[in-house]
Amino acid sequence: VSEKISSADNQQERLLTPDYIVGLVDGEGYFSVSPVYGKYKNYTSFEVKMIFGIDLKEKDGKILNEIQQYFDCGHLSRKIEKRENFSNQIRYQVKDHSSILKKIIPFFQKHPLRFPSRQRKFKFFVKIGRMVEKREYKDVKGFEKLKSLVQKMRQ
Amino acid sequence: VSEKISSADNQQERLLTPDYIVGLVDGEGYFSVSPVYGKYKNYTSFEVKMIFGIDLKEKDGKILNEIQQYFDCGHLSRKIEKRENFSNQIRYQVKDHSSILKKIIPFFQKHPLRFPSRQRKFKFFVKIGRMVEKREYKDVKGFEKLKSLVQKMRQ
Repeated sequence: VSEKISSADNQQERLLTPDYIVGLVDGEGYFSVSPVYGKYKNYTSFEVKMIFGIDLKEKDGKILNEIQQYFDCGHLSRKIEKRENFSNQIRYQVKDHSSILKKIIPFFQKHPLRFPSRQRKFKFFVKIGRMVEKREYKDVKGFEKLKSLVQKMRQ
Repeated sequence: VSEKISSADNQQERLLTPDYIVGLVDGEGYFSVSPVYGKYKNYTSFEVKMIFGIDLKEKDGKILNEIQQYFDCGHLSRKIEKRENFSNQIRYQVKDHSSILKKIIPFFQKHPLRFPSRQRKFKFFVKIGRMVEKREYKDVKGFEKLKSLVQKMRQ
């Protein structure tokens, strides 16, 4: 019995490690950027939506709580699936620029992704992050540059 | 320049770690079992196909070479995709019973998967592995037991 208890404790105490997170994000994570242009009566606005996220089937969603705690940022939501034979998803997303710049980007710079496709996206994500940090996308010229980076990132 | 070179070296030397593999397999791996019953003129045969595998898009397939080296078993193959907007896949699979029993199962016992759905499949995979080790599926009774485990595993 004591063996069982200690093995259960181990299970609970087994914290996430950076390598585990990199493996999971290589397989299941995503980095996305959308430029958002707003034209109003008296002004135009240049915004950019950045997302780091992981979506998992609901039954495996508990991991995302741990990932949220690990990064100490981001939100969880449930995506209801209406198609038959598909299951609901739990979605972990970090969207606020400050968390992306101060937590997400530094983490993956310290612990690099291994999938070439993911590394490539992340490289553009970082470039765009730098523009966001310096608010370089807030005029027409900067916004055009950002849009062309996004286009390349999506290829 | 020297900085660039050393960073490139680091990239190459960065070996896979167990935690990374667990994260990747939680997201992208699979364990599957198929009972194979053969009825011939003079005899019947009871076989079981076990597979541990990971399929990735071709552009990320290089990782699977490293995983094959890490586990020191298994085969790589390319799955040609004919549908538009889908890309070819590289498939890593371990099928021989000996490698599964001596390498794959012990690895994931030492480094447990974290996804509940994956843990559950693996638990059945291990149970079936034990039957295979003892050749307990080689008669009608054992084969029926194996089939019912497979059925539960698939639920």
